[in-house]
Amino acid sequence: MLSNRTVSVLKWGRCEAYTAVYPKVPDRVLNFYPLPSLSSPHRNLSLFPAAQREHLHQKMSENGALPRGGKVLTVDTMNANVKKVDYAVRGPIVQRAVQIEKELKEGVKKPFEEVIKANIGDAHAMGQRPITFFRQVMALCTYPQLLDDNKFPEDAKNRARRILQSCGGNSIGAYTTSQGIECVRHDVANYIQRRDGGIPSDPDNIYLTTGASDGIVTILKLLTAGEGRTRTGVMISIPQYPLYSASIAELGAVQVNYYLNEEKCWSLDISELQRSLQAAREHCNPRVLCIINPGNPTGQVQSRQCIEDVIQFAAKENLFLMADEVYQDNVYAEGCEFHSFKKVLFEMGPEYSSKVELVSFHSTSKCYMGECGFRGGYMEVINMDPEVKAQLTKLVSVRLCPPAPGQALMDLVVNSPKPGEPSYQTFMMERTAILSALAEKAKLTEEILNTVPGIRCNPVQGAMYSFPCITLPERAINEAKAKGQAPDMFYCMKLLEETGICLVPGSGFGQREGTYHFRMTILPPTDKLKILLNKLKEFHQKFTQQYS
Amino acid sequence: MLSNRTVSVLKWGRCEAYTAVYPKVPDRVLNFYPLPSLSSPHRNLSLFPAAQREHLHQKMSENGALPRGGKVLTVDTMNANVKKVDYAVRGPIVQRAVQIEKELKEGVKKPFEEVIKANIGDAHAMGQRPITFFRQVMALCTYPQLLDDNKFPEDAKNRARRILQSCGGNSIGAYTTSQGIECVRHDVANYIQRRDGGIPSDPDNIYLTTGASDGIVTILKLLTAGEGRTRTGVMISIPQYPLYSASIAELGAVQVNYYLNEEKCWSLDISELQRSLQAAREHCNPRVLCIINPGNPTGQVQSRQCIEDVIQFAAKENLFLMADEVYQDNVYAEGCEFHSFKKVLFEMGPEYSSKVELVSFHSTSKCYMGECGFRGGYMEVINMDPEVKAQLTKLVSVRLCPPAPGQALMDLVVNSPKPGEPSYQTFMMERTAILSALAEKAKLTEEILNTVPGIRCNPVQGAMYSFPCITLPERAINEAKAKGQAPDMFYCMKLLEETGICLVPGSGFGQREGTYHFRMTILPPTDKLKILLNKLKEFHQKFTQQYS
Repeated sequence: MLSNRTVSVLKWGRCEAYTAVYPKVPDRVLNFYPLPSLSSPHRNLSLFPAAQREHLHQKMSENGALPRGGKVLTVDTMNANVKKVDYAVRGPIVQRAVQIEKELKEGVKKPFEEVIKANIGDAHAMGQRPITFFRQVMALCTYPQLLDDNKFPEDAKNRARRILQSCGGNSIGAYTTSQGIECVRHDVANYIQRRDGGIPSDPDNIYLTTGASDGIVTILKLLTAGEGRTRTGVMISIPQYPLYSASIAELGAVQVNYYLNEEKCWSLDISELQRSLQAAREHCNPRVLCIINPGNPTGQVQSRQCIEDVIQFAAKENLFLMADEVYQDNVYAEGCEFHSFKKVLFEMGPEYSSKVELVSFHSTSKCYMGECGFRGGYMEVINMDPEVKAQLTKLVSVRLCPPAPGQALMDLVVNSPKPGEPSYQTFMMERTAILSALAEKAKLTEEILNTVPGIRCNPVQGAMYSFPCITLPERAINEAKAKGQAPDMFYCMKLLEETGICLVPGSGFGQREGTYHFRMTILPPTDKLKILLNKLKEFHQKFTQQYS
Repeated sequence: MLSNRTVSVLKWGRCEAYTAVYPKVPDRVLNFYPLPSLSSPHRNLSLFPAAQREHLHQKMSENGALPRGGKVLTVDTMNANVKKVDYAVRGPIVQRAVQIEKELKEGVKKPFEEVIKANIGDAHAMGQRPITFFRQVMALCTYPQLLDDNKFPEDAKNRARRILQSCGGNSIGAYTTSQGIECVRHDVANYIQRRDGGIPSDPDNIYLTTGASDGIVTILKLLTAGEGRTRTGVMISIPQYPLYSASIAELGAVQVNYYLNEEKCWSLDISELQRSLQAAREHCNPRVLCIINPGNPTGQVQSRQCIEDVIQFAAKENLFLMADEVYQDNVYAEGCEFHSFKKVLFEMGPEYSSKVELVSFHSTSKCYMGECGFRGGYMEVINMDPEVKAQLTKLVSVRLCPPAPGQALMDLVVNSPKPGEPSYQTFMMERTAILSALAEKAKLTEEILNTVPGIRCNPVQGAMYSFPCITLPERAINEAKAKGQAPDMFYCMKLLEETGICLVPGSGFGQREGTYHFRMTILPPTDKLKILLNKLKEFHQKFTQQYS
């Protein structure tokens, strides 16, 4: 209960403690607080129960009557959707890893010399070298005086000249058109057409983006509408890449989970899509189906048949398809092959290709180039309503343009050296070396992990991650719960503290109730990866004993 | 009225036209449509009145009952806030300018040879050369093999080495931390401290951004909360830079206008802030005050006194301050000087410096460097609630990181060559040349425009724009209105068609009812600018005669 004094203050804003700072607290502020609900023993706004505090704060701020020193922006008065956002890939475990690195630098003794970050698909950070040709062209675009330097091959110079000619003032320092540099969009369209066996691609349907993330968020933004039962539902795979759950939370859309089949190598069952959709229709308006292929964090590669079934399902159920295909060059397993949703859609004939709305996303950050820092990407929009497309173009224009260097780099990815060009051999050598090393590491990871009792790892068919299932002893689970931690977070934190290995708990991606996983990239150099995997094996055995 | 047949269709989904495509139209779809409201003479969903269509579409999509070929995503079912977004700087007039350029290329005869784009602050596109030192360092960061090249000065190499050392795997192709490369944030903090006469700046309060726009939208996002009368109101100057109105619309916040005083050289009157705030409190919860200094589109530079008054006002009224200071080096007028909000805030003493929440924004796109394409920027957050700051850090982590090249470039802007370093002289020469040319063009623009009867132009004290007031004949105004066009849009369109000059109508920035303006950049090369201004003079006289 508040003292009468405080009540009278809230009511009339009289006593010195308050009159000084509350020029006027209107009665209607108090009307929100019939006495019984004034349960805080303190006058301090921040100590009221959140619900009351939020109202009280808002009402007072409406009247410019906030206490001096009180923040305008607090967790109680900020965007509630932002609070719901969660992004495990850079969550607490990574923050702790960064701390530990600092501690090591400061000479703090640890049972290990270095932190190995296998939490994020960041190839260069793991020691992968950039593709020479790409960086040569980028240097030429950045500092055109180098065009006179004979150390640079002619094909690199030609690419640079072509890109610069389509930039305002021949400078990548100029804004580009909002949709992206025209010649780059043409090159992207040609690349897609080649990739998809001649199925045409229209440069007007290409939007260059700030990494794939930017495109995905932009399309989800367009799709988010309605309130309550009519609010847009977005179907995402579980496990998922947390950009999706985070963006859905931020936009206030409804996350609709469909579970991948771990027993069948993380494949996608239409029956599960159906179940998920029907359940969702009870409480929201599911309009979007998101697919990640090759899979992140699960590393599966979808069969052509599966993609056809998904498209059929989307057509039947009137769902807008979003195909995250940033790992399209990362396919390792025997008998697996990348099939683009666009290609399969058009091979299914006009009944589908003229109807199904599809957006496909690609990026400079993954595959063999791993140029994450440049934030390059594109999306191709197919069968989008022309009026909506105009709205999309308008929306992206507000941020002016994606980074020009990222656009230029995207151009090189889709327009890499051709046979006969001076840089072709080196380029192919570098590309092949990276991709075959990844294939080797994918196999290595699966094999070693599966030798550990209590770890079950599906084949890493593609992408850059393994997502093994781990068996945790009951006692560990209880100790974690007692700590208010997800059991696999508890496991990963212990792993980090004891071995310096930084992984992401499965709970950050979603998993079936009662199962536990972690995501581990296959990106560390082979020798380091072996060390990592054996340390992990050792740790898991120790952990299991300790809690059995 | 719909034919009974159609009604029965909507009710039972029976007749062939519909049964084929509506597997089941549930009764509750129809319940939304008591017969009287079924006023469309057509069955085509898209021809129903929007309100009905939206409901009908949603209800049917809830039941997977949309007609085959009907889009999932239409303007009726998309994000309504996005539809409200408007961004004049790249609006219809610019789209038309791009068309005209294509027509010219195709040899279409026009009364002019080229389109002069004075619509956007895009220095390089207007022929400004990049700063040599910046591009040298960027080339070195991009292609480190050049570090062995003796054509590059040592200070450039040192900057590049330092940046690369703080990148994962020494590559700008690696993701950086979400808040931005640590050494860059330190350099930014040191720059601010130097700029503000020693007032300390904490690198932990620096967030690197994808251009200033990205930072501004992110902060507005945090601040947007509440519903109806408690919805966040954002106070922006009129005229404003349309990024603000666009972001406010997209976030569904409430735009609160305060008018700059055109008679007093676009100065800011506190009495007008007070009026605007009081009016807004009747219908929303105004919590944010946005200031652009030097002004865009209005080119004024705020006095120290004015800034102090604004801060006092924000403190008294509990407003969160956003200071857009991207033009901080663009000050031309005698007796004008840039004062940062941060500096003035701290000079006002602890009562203010410990309380007022302030975020200041800067960018690589303006000032003397004009590197728009790199999308580099930073923001400094001051007195932000620590819990909110944690939320901000989490939020930016979802997009992983700003483009690394933009971050590196931002570093060079805040850590440019120092006296004694090999690149210092060239750098200063280039910098001074650009800034004094801008000063000259600012004066030139004001002078020539003010010789035109019917055009009144305030001094361009800073930034890159003039925003003159134009008198339009009654007949022109009526003809525009008859066309459903804003009169100044009508004027600018005619100007574009007849002279090839591309300006942005004042209506795109906001202006007092019944006044008309346009925004023109001062960026074209001096000789071209003179031609532009004289063509404009001629056009205005002709236009005035034609419609008098």
